[in-house]
Amino acid sequence: MTARQPRSVRVVGTGLVGTSVGLALCSQGVDVTLFDPSPSAVALARDLGAGRIEPNAAADLVVVAAPPDVVADVVAAELAARPDAVVTDVASVKSLPLKRLRAMGVDVSRYVGGHPLAGRERSGAVAARADLFAGRPWVLTPTEETSEPALQMVRWMAGTLGATVSVMDAVEHDEAVAVISHVPQVAASLVAARLRSAPESAVALAGQGVRDVTRIAASDPHLWTQILAGNAGAVARALHALRDDLDSVLAAVDALGAQPDDALGARATVAGLVAAGNEGHARIPGKHGSAPTVYVAVPVIVPDRPGELARLLRDVGDAGVNLEDLRIEHSEGRPMGLAEIDVLPAAAQTLVGALRERGWTVHA
Amino acid sequence: MTARQPRSVRVVGTGLVGTSVGLALCSQGVDVTLFDPSPSAVALARDLGAGRIEPNAAADLVVVAAPPDVVADVVAAELAARPDAVVTDVASVKSLPLKRLRAMGVDVSRYVGGHPLAGRERSGAVAARADLFAGRPWVLTPTEETSEPALQMVRWMAGTLGATVSVMDAVEHDEAVAVISHVPQVAASLVAARLRSAPESAVALAGQGVRDVTRIAASDPHLWTQILAGNAGAVARALHALRDDLDSVLAAVDALGAQPDDALGARATVAGLVAAGNEGHARIPGKHGSAPTVYVAVPVIVPDRPGELARLLRDVGDAGVNLEDLRIEHSEGRPMGLAEIDVLPAAAQTLVGALRERGWTVHA
Repeated sequence: MTARQPRSVRVVGTGLVGTSVGLALCSQGVDVTLFDPSPSAVALARDLGAGRIEPNAAADLVVVAAPPDVVADVVAAELAARPDAVVTDVASVKSLPLKRLRAMGVDVSRYVGGHPLAGRERSGAVAARADLFAGRPWVLTPTEETSEPALQMVRWMAGTLGATVSVMDAVEHDEAVAVISHVPQVAASLVAARLRSAPESAVALAGQGVRDVTRIAASDPHLWTQILAGNAGAVARALHALRDDLDSVLAAVDALGAQPDDALGARATVAGLVAAGNEGHARIPGKHGSAPTVYVAVPVIVPDRPGELARLLRDVGDAGVNLEDLRIEHSEGRPMGLAEIDVLPAAAQTLVGALRERGWTVHA
Repeated sequence: MTARQPRSVRVVGTGLVGTSVGLALCSQGVDVTLFDPSPSAVALARDLGAGRIEPNAAADLVVVAAPPDVVADVVAAELAARPDAVVTDVASVKSLPLKRLRAMGVDVSRYVGGHPLAGRERSGAVAARADLFAGRPWVLTPTEETSEPALQMVRWMAGTLGATVSVMDAVEHDEAVAVISHVPQVAASLVAARLRSAPESAVALAGQGVRDVTRIAASDPHLWTQILAGNAGAVARALHALRDDLDSVLAAVDALGAQPDDALGARATVAGLVAAGNEGHARIPGKHGSAPTVYVAVPVIVPDRPGELARLLRDVGDAGVNLEDLRIEHSEGRPMGLAEIDVLPAAAQTLVGALRERGWTVHA
């Protein structure tokens, strides 16, 4: 046991993230105590194996997993009640809680802001998993006053939970998540909101593009209001920049609508936006944070009968090649689908041969 | 052979869609001739089995698969050169080509506008597939002058290619694709464009959300400029409505940034947008055009070693349950991934039991 490792951890708030932290630390042999204002929530987390219930336990480390809009108050209370404990939180915005702590006059030398980027579509303790953080980014946002041992303790925890830890300041974090998470959420909601009034015949034409763009539009309005309000400054900056781009495109599209055969500059504006999107999209890292690897997609026709997809997966397994990814494209109203199996270029021929030998229609 | 079925089909333009039409019709025993202004493109399509090369062939039906901005000229030329042929096209915008045909004084009784919603990320004849249209929507946009036999012939073709045919007028079509396809494209490009100037540390935080929202931002700027310019009126209407929503949210976020503890109306505006997105998203049809079915996602931990995913797929196959969908969630920098296998609720327990028996860690 190193000096950085806490002997005991108190988890405050037993939703998805808090319960997952408890599960993961318990599996590492750490003594975890749980608290939640809801007695039924904390009992469920205990039953799932996330720790012991002890409302006022002492602890070396406190993990505050409370909703964003109360996190500063809870952190302040924990720091005050446990004068030797290190306190961290998991809120997805970081500047505002820190600002509030400072406004309350709280000494933040034992506080380390944190944000594991590990949400799921599902929420609550039932969706918790000990491996929720495995391979996910976990940003820590220490201040100048934050003590090195406090930072090391939280870094130990995030690392033990399997996360990839990075350190940045709170403002830098909030600007980053505004662009990488909050603006995409707003854009998905804006596009999906347009579908409300679309005729049935239009919605019936939905393909994979609009499905992907709007998938996260199914997110919880209450949680997202807290997140967007909690990061309002950075979100506003990014959204204003997006609106400036939108205004340019709108002016171009308006001009093209009025004078379809003229407005050459307008075409350049539209092409410029799509090209800018190409560039931005290309910056998103691939698997394992590396540059995107080029895989070969092997498309296989799958009759939509019980057992056919299972049979394909078994045959793919028997072929013994390493799959990188797999997408299933559902067909609408026809008795077939299409599975696209991504493999390294060198493995594609083996897979194609093995599948054809077993009677599959492979388009490669 | 019914009266509606053409004995010979001429395909003009041997890119992805034209070549796929040729492949599919040849496999149905229809005599297909190919033409493309590029000799190498038409030779490739012929070699792939999409039809014979005959630049000035007679035909009962002509399929114009030319780029959107030249489609009206090509349709007009084909109608003039083949006084008995039915002519259809596959352009993704429908009002503007029709308007141009009318402006040229063309009799459109033998013209049936068409749009198969069957694009792929890849383009060109090499990506062509005889089943490209299987289960995909194919919209036909006849005018009042369009003859019934002409419509029936094109309907026969789209149906023979496995598409789900719907009929609407050109304006209705363009309004529909503006909302379901063109606005999502612009939104994806706008979000991705923000990533260009984001610091490396921000882009490293990219998760599945931003990946999904921006996937189609990788699309071809040249093609999309033609599409957006060709449907400028409808796209502008939908984008203006989106900008109105964006302006409301921006005003709310600005207010929250200035007065984080006040601005209650602002929170309601933000929550209202996310809720509107929930509603719009829920209208997107599920598999087979039906209402979305609720499946159970069975999450399985997959060590990132060669053969592990293949072994899982084989074990899933052996369990004999029918898979509805499968997602693979890659981890960043850690030696494990997560496969989520969607099955009907009744099948979940069987699958979980079978996988656990074979040593898999299943979180269900």
